[in-house]
Amino acid sequence: MYRPEIKVLDCTIRDGGLMNNWDFSMDQVKRIYQALWEAGVDHMEIGYRHDKEMFPPEKSGPWRHCDEELVHEVVTSAEEVEDKERPRIAVMADIGKSVESDFTLPAAESAVDMVRIATYAKDADKAVHFAKHCKDLGYEISINLMSISHCTEFELHEALQAMVESPADVICVVDSFGALYSEEVAYLVQKYQKYVADRPIEIGVHMHNNMQLAFSNTIEGVIRGANRLDGTLYGMGRGAGNCCTELLLSFLKNPKFDVRPVLSVISDIMLPMREKIEWGYLIPYMVTGSLDEHPRSAIAWLGKPERNDFTTFYDKMREGVPIS
Amino acid sequence: MYRPEIKVLDCTIRDGGLMNNWDFSMDQVKRIYQALWEAGVDHMEIGYRHDKEMFPPEKSGPWRHCDEELVHEVVTSAEEVEDKERPRIAVMADIGKSVESDFTLPAAESAVDMVRIATYAKDADKAVHFAKHCKDLGYEISINLMSISHCTEFELHEALQAMVESPADVICVVDSFGALYSEEVAYLVQKYQKYVADRPIEIGVHMHNNMQLAFSNTIEGVIRGANRLDGTLYGMGRGAGNCCTELLLSFLKNPKFDVRPVLSVISDIMLPMREKIEWGYLIPYMVTGSLDEHPRSAIAWLGKPERNDFTTFYDKMREGVPIS
Repeated sequence: MYRPEIKVLDCTIRDGGLMNNWDFSMDQVKRIYQALWEAGVDHMEIGYRHDKEMFPPEKSGPWRHCDEELVHEVVTSAEEVEDKERPRIAVMADIGKSVESDFTLPAAESAVDMVRIATYAKDADKAVHFAKHCKDLGYEISINLMSISHCTEFELHEALQAMVESPADVICVVDSFGALYSEEVAYLVQKYQKYVADRPIEIGVHMHNNMQLAFSNTIEGVIRGANRLDGTLYGMGRGAGNCCTELLLSFLKNPKFDVRPVLSVISDIMLPMREKIEWGYLIPYMVTGSLDEHPRSAIAWLGKPERNDFTTFYDKMREGVPIS
Repeated sequence: MYRPEIKVLDCTIRDGGLMNNWDFSMDQVKRIYQALWEAGVDHMEIGYRHDKEMFPPEKSGPWRHCDEELVHEVVTSAEEVEDKERPRIAVMADIGKSVESDFTLPAAESAVDMVRIATYAKDADKAVHFAKHCKDLGYEISINLMSISHCTEFELHEALQAMVESPADVICVVDSFGALYSEEVAYLVQKYQKYVADRPIEIGVHMHNNMQLAFSNTIEGVIRGANRLDGTLYGMGRGAGNCCTELLLSFLKNPKFDVRPVLSVISDIMLPMREKIEWGYLIPYMVTGSLDEHPRSAIAWLGKPERNDFTTFYDKMREGVPIS
């Protein structure tokens, strides 16, 4: 029997936005919200809320800041879907790039329902502070600990201890570099569970596809007890991209999930976008994933005329030569 | 510690040949053989040996028939690689499409080392007969049981019983439709192991990528004890393609494996080929995989002008409408 606790969060606009500078049209975002509602998706992460002083609004599409009115327009425009709850709206805050003073409206008055706080282990205490601030306003909270494949055991221990003592509803295992194999995912989810113990905190998984393991690692997370699953439509996301939401919807057994409504969105929005913007399995991303390196080197390499000289790229990565 | 028994077979020319009608040039095949040798790959499946009466040679490239002289030219042209054994050469025989009379040369006199026999469960006894014939000539033998996701338990039982009593050196779990999830792979590999018991038969895995699970399912096979792993360069293969050989080479810990030598082959041969021929993760393949259907419907759909209307394709597949 399926686990009714399992929830899907689609972060196409937020993570995909890293590839198109958050330049989605209002119509595209509305259409995706409607399709996700029909598909039974539980959360839609509609963008970042980055600080406007650090990241001036004129330099990106609006989903980098997710002003209240913008989000409000999306959720109020949708047509109700019978027998399905609407997707809850999440925005992401980044420690070091977002400020608590941009979160002042109580959740009850906001079109946003959830704040996901992305942090490195060293900033876990800052993330916890941010989490308390938003929780006091009534938001559902996730803390997403990034780059864990570069954390020492002690760093991870300290961060986990801080996170589980925070008011977070979810803590998320994030494979930032697409470097994890299934056995490591199993190990990490089980480790997170030990810290959570009997607290009412769910474990989430956010996987990248550098080695074509994003979907299978998400399933591994499910097998080990993770109940919050991240995906993006057609895998859109930085570098090699993410676990595909359509694969999650095909896989999960809860009858409320239905892949059909997202198929036309993939046809009409994601395919034309993929023609213009490159994400997915490409050898330089495979190389950085398999070497447990940040994809930025691969992204930089793919912008060069010699982009398809994979041997040279591999040699440089092995030698630790910076690529920019 | 790594398992020295784990061997990699690259079937780019054989399975990839399904996509380009086995139209690889001699230079391409030689270059791939050399790179696989340098990479430590154990076997190279260099094509089919299909019956020339059924499949006239003028209608396809030469790797559909793999004449002795052809294979001989490939292996004798290679430069020796220090400290590495050369890849053993496999050809595939298909029950119903290949004939025993095309295998007459003793293995000791042939450039071919291994015969892999592809069969459906219903033809398992024919495959065993074929296996005996080739084993008597001295070839290493694998029996690859296809379409197992459509087999009843009893069909699988009968086929497995016949196979383990044959002279096969390897029996291979083949996910023809790219429909298996990791738990099913674990179940099947463990089931095959029970039949093998203490016989000297290795278990192989041959996975397709319809749901982006080919690599992870291969790893799952390894975890459960499979020692023979199939891959193709850049995943080239029918429909969604295969487990990528480069991912296997990055993953496996045996020091003899090295991904570097195949990277330039991917740059120079596979990328230009992928520009002309379409394989990999496409939504119609995802749909057939998730519905446990043969990819032929997806291949047919992708040849139509309405190829990107995924909703209509999905509806037809759900209704069981034939697509041709």
